[in-house]
Amino acid sequence: MLTRLLISNYQRFFKQINFVNREQFCRNHCNTMSKTALILAANGSEEMELVITGDVLRRAGIDVTIAGLEGSGPINCSRKVVIVPDKALTDVSSSEFDIVILPGGLGGAEAFASSSAVGELLRKQEAAGRWIGAICAAPIALKSHGIALKKRLTSWPGKESELIDSYAYQQERVVVDGKLITSRSPGTAFEFALAIIEQLLNKEKADEVGKPMLVNL
Amino acid sequence: MLTRLLISNYQRFFKQINFVNREQFCRNHCNTMSKTALILAANGSEEMELVITGDVLRRAGIDVTIAGLEGSGPINCSRKVVIVPDKALTDVSSSEFDIVILPGGLGGAEAFASSSAVGELLRKQEAAGRWIGAICAAPIALKSHGIALKKRLTSWPGKESELIDSYAYQQERVVVDGKLITSRSPGTAFEFALAIIEQLLNKEKADEVGKPMLVNL
Repeated sequence: MLTRLLISNYQRFFKQINFVNREQFCRNHCNTMSKTALILAANGSEEMELVITGDVLRRAGIDVTIAGLEGSGPINCSRKVVIVPDKALTDVSSSEFDIVILPGGLGGAEAFASSSAVGELLRKQEAAGRWIGAICAAPIALKSHGIALKKRLTSWPGKESELIDSYAYQQERVVVDGKLITSRSPGTAFEFALAIIEQLLNKEKADEVGKPMLVNL
Repeated sequence: MLTRLLISNYQRFFKQINFVNREQFCRNHCNTMSKTALILAANGSEEMELVITGDVLRRAGIDVTIAGLEGSGPINCSRKVVIVPDKALTDVSSSEFDIVILPGGLGGAEAFASSSAVGELLRKQEAAGRWIGAICAAPIALKSHGIALKKRLTSWPGKESELIDSYAYQQERVVVDGKLITSRSPGTAFEFALAIIEQLLNKEKADEVGKPMLVNL
């Protein structure tokens, strides 16, 4: 008797949700919960670009893993902030992520560029048609591993000369081309993170996250 | 003979530096090296506000110490980024800093508000006529410890109702009143950090740091 009452209430509840509401619910919740992001981190990574991206994506409900290139121990970032990654890169190398993100910072970007593990991860990501993001100096690692060649891309202005022959170089603050999202510097990191949310989820979610943070767009 | 030649060249060099150049040199170098900032951190602190402030101030040459309220161990920030502070607050309680800065994040701000050590630190800072900075939810800790009462101040909009009776509440992105600098949210953290540089050093240094980061002002 109680079971039938519960089922009946349950059915009534779902009848009340029309298609628009269900779609909205899914866009806000179902969709959000299913997205995953891997952010790489290495000694010399730019802490603002790392932290802004991770924090803002988590505000959108994206499941973010910060993975240390050199292991799971503390990372000395470019301006001496010490960050402990969630995992070592070796712990997640067999996992799939909707997006793999490379923060800048010259030391970190050079470590990504010379790492065969990062090369393998990026090639697998590209071959599977999944997203790749890179900000500031990190696009040099894309070039080093032969990723997304000839695509429209931006970077820290100081790296333009290294990238201009291999890519359709842009000077916009955020550039999206296919499944590649790139950006320029710590001062564009909020826009980079919100663009990732817009691409992985939707514009409404990006606005929902961006507005309460009072981001100057 | 050689000694006299060296002295003569030395004197000629210093005669060539006019007053304006020496003043500029001092503003860019001497002044910068002498400034110190203490940034408090606690479990629940907002990692973007903590990291943006620390990183940007370090770019200006300010000697920044991140001090953990609960000790020198790793801090679990509001969006699960783990940061290792430079020191425990107890290690620096007898030191003097040009500015003491409180990042937001509700959990962290509430910990600052209920900590007698933070209260003592802030009262000592205010009594000595030195700078205090607070962003987002952190101004509730100023109120809790009776700091800068009736001054012009801003905060995370959600905390306006708690502060409006004790302060001349403002809705600007950054507010400076006397030796108090306050701001609103992660999206205003770059402006907060650059305002601190402008007040502790000068506008030229703030521009020199802000422009290459491509901060959207």
